[in-house]
Amino acid sequence: MKIAVDVMSGESPPKTLIQGALKAVEESDVEVVLVGDETTIYKELEQHSQSYKQISVVHASEIIAMDESPAKACRKKKDASVMVAGALVAKKKTDGFFSPGNTGATLASSLFSIKRIEGVKRPALASILPTVKGYAILLDAGANVDSDPEHLAQFAIMGEIFVKKILEIPEPRVGLLNIGEEDIKGNELSQKAFEIIKTIDFNFIGNIEGHDVFEGDVDVIVCDGFTGNIVLKLSEGLGSVVMRLIKNEMIKNYKYRLGAYMAKSALRSVKERFNPATYGGAPLLGINGCALVGHGNTGELATKNAILTTAKMARAKLDKLIKKSIHLHTLSTG
Amino acid sequence: MKIAVDVMSGESPPKTLIQGALKAVEESDVEVVLVGDETTIYKELEQHSQSYKQISVVHASEIIAMDESPAKACRKKKDASVMVAGALVAKKKTDGFFSPGNTGATLASSLFSIKRIEGVKRPALASILPTVKGYAILLDAGANVDSDPEHLAQFAIMGEIFVKKILEIPEPRVGLLNIGEEDIKGNELSQKAFEIIKTIDFNFIGNIEGHDVFEGDVDVIVCDGFTGNIVLKLSEGLGSVVMRLIKNEMIKNYKYRLGAYMAKSALRSVKERFNPATYGGAPLLGINGCALVGHGNTGELATKNAILTTAKMARAKLDKLIKKSIHLHTLSTG
Repeated sequence: MKIAVDVMSGESPPKTLIQGALKAVEESDVEVVLVGDETTIYKELEQHSQSYKQISVVHASEIIAMDESPAKACRKKKDASVMVAGALVAKKKTDGFFSPGNTGATLASSLFSIKRIEGVKRPALASILPTVKGYAILLDAGANVDSDPEHLAQFAIMGEIFVKKILEIPEPRVGLLNIGEEDIKGNELSQKAFEIIKTIDFNFIGNIEGHDVFEGDVDVIVCDGFTGNIVLKLSEGLGSVVMRLIKNEMIKNYKYRLGAYMAKSALRSVKERFNPATYGGAPLLGINGCALVGHGNTGELATKNAILTTAKMARAKLDKLIKKSIHLHTLSTG
Repeated sequence: MKIAVDVMSGESPPKTLIQGALKAVEESDVEVVLVGDETTIYKELEQHSQSYKQISVVHASEIIAMDESPAKACRKKKDASVMVAGALVAKKKTDGFFSPGNTGATLASSLFSIKRIEGVKRPALASILPTVKGYAILLDAGANVDSDPEHLAQFAIMGEIFVKKILEIPEPRVGLLNIGEEDIKGNELSQKAFEIIKTIDFNFIGNIEGHDVFEGDVDVIVCDGFTGNIVLKLSEGLGSVVMRLIKNEMIKNYKYRLGAYMAKSALRSVKERFNPATYGGAPLLGINGCALVGHGNTGELATKNAILTTAKMARAKLDKLIKKSIHLHTLSTG
């Protein structure tokens, strides 16, 4: 199992990313290909006394910055680390890739070189969200801006497979994010999507609402990419917002401050739950291979977990399973 | 200033609602009309030794339950408390009304009897959200399921007036909830809405993203009713979700438990911030009068605040100001 890591992207390349990769090879038999400027990478690797048999390097001379326009940058910078990493998957040189950089560029690299699975109308970004009881995925989290009902049905199919195989939940509960629980509620898109999704052979629990997202009673949350991206970004900021609100209250009184001091690690660990390092990133589902999109501020632990999650996706042959299910669905709906 | 209160709706009618109304008249010169079954209301009023000059009662023989289909129920139950309360505003017998019941029924009652302002294409529900720095409003929070760009522009105008007059922020910052900060980002609806909103003469700060919602750097958050309703319901559940996560962590260790005990009131007050009793409900903007929609679980404090907020809206002649601004906007856009 070989995973390419774009170590030049994100907010602190390549040091923490390389450290995360070294941790991943120490803890598993996954081989990692570090993609980026080779001089910089070898210089960083020299800092580590141990030699790593599972590590190799592929040179890429360019970098796409976090704030560059993805479409334009990907057309112009063919030798950008994120493009080279994607190409390694396309050429079957690695089984998947991970980039913690510009999300749009990672999507563009995947679509451009790895390409979407035949029959998949729109690949989707699946974000792994913390809930009171564990984790759930939300898709599409922003790979697409405008969606139609059939796209949402395909998101549901792809998400269900991911949760079954990677989060290891045997019969994932699939819910459609909507603005009312009754079957006929919602906007035109969600009403039509409901009609298609209810015919699919999995555990569809119907419409769910905003307050259900974090409750942990649904495993696959299906929505269009516009709504999903807003929900995702809202959730990402939340840990920090709530902790600041608590801090504001705490400083009002000495007893509170002492209490907060004693409970500090507990509060920090709640904040950390909203920082989804556990799986290291958001999988892009619906392409002929495995790609994981990280956060700009991916640290060592998140990088390690991202590599292991991508390897798990590759080992499960997630793309093949998706291809099969989408094909069956297309046959059944005509 | 006279406000009608539908005291038969919500989860615990009419006791807490009547108590909230009594608090409101004790603390202000607002007159309150209690709308509902008069026998029940008088029986509850008898529990209070004091007589209240500012309180009167209007009988309504029917009730629309929280789970009834609004459109159907409003057509069938003309004498429902929420319908009678709306009709009092329409007949200018009161300056506004508040109902803590079925949101759809409150909207239907408002649109049916009070009617929308000439020129307003779609009235919008404005939800008042807590932020790290204070409060912001989000609209539309679910009065409409499908919106077009001009609707969003009108939501922006109405919301800006509400924030200026009721939250008393002199130059409200208006932001469009979108999935990228650049001007050209987003789905078709938000891109087109951006083009209209940027021509309006107020402090438009451009696109904002999910993580900006609770940061307190934007005062009026504009979005379609589908997205808005999901954001609203997600936020409503959050206080409870985060507190449960903290509790789960706290029980792991004696020191944490003691810390949590000491900081209990601080934690509770953060939870309370996500329970928007401060303003008592969500105003419906764009109708010829003032209506506030409460939560089903409206308590005494929220009822009092809802009455005072509705009275403030009426005193500011919010509907007249909205009518004028929408008229000017319509002239300028042709």
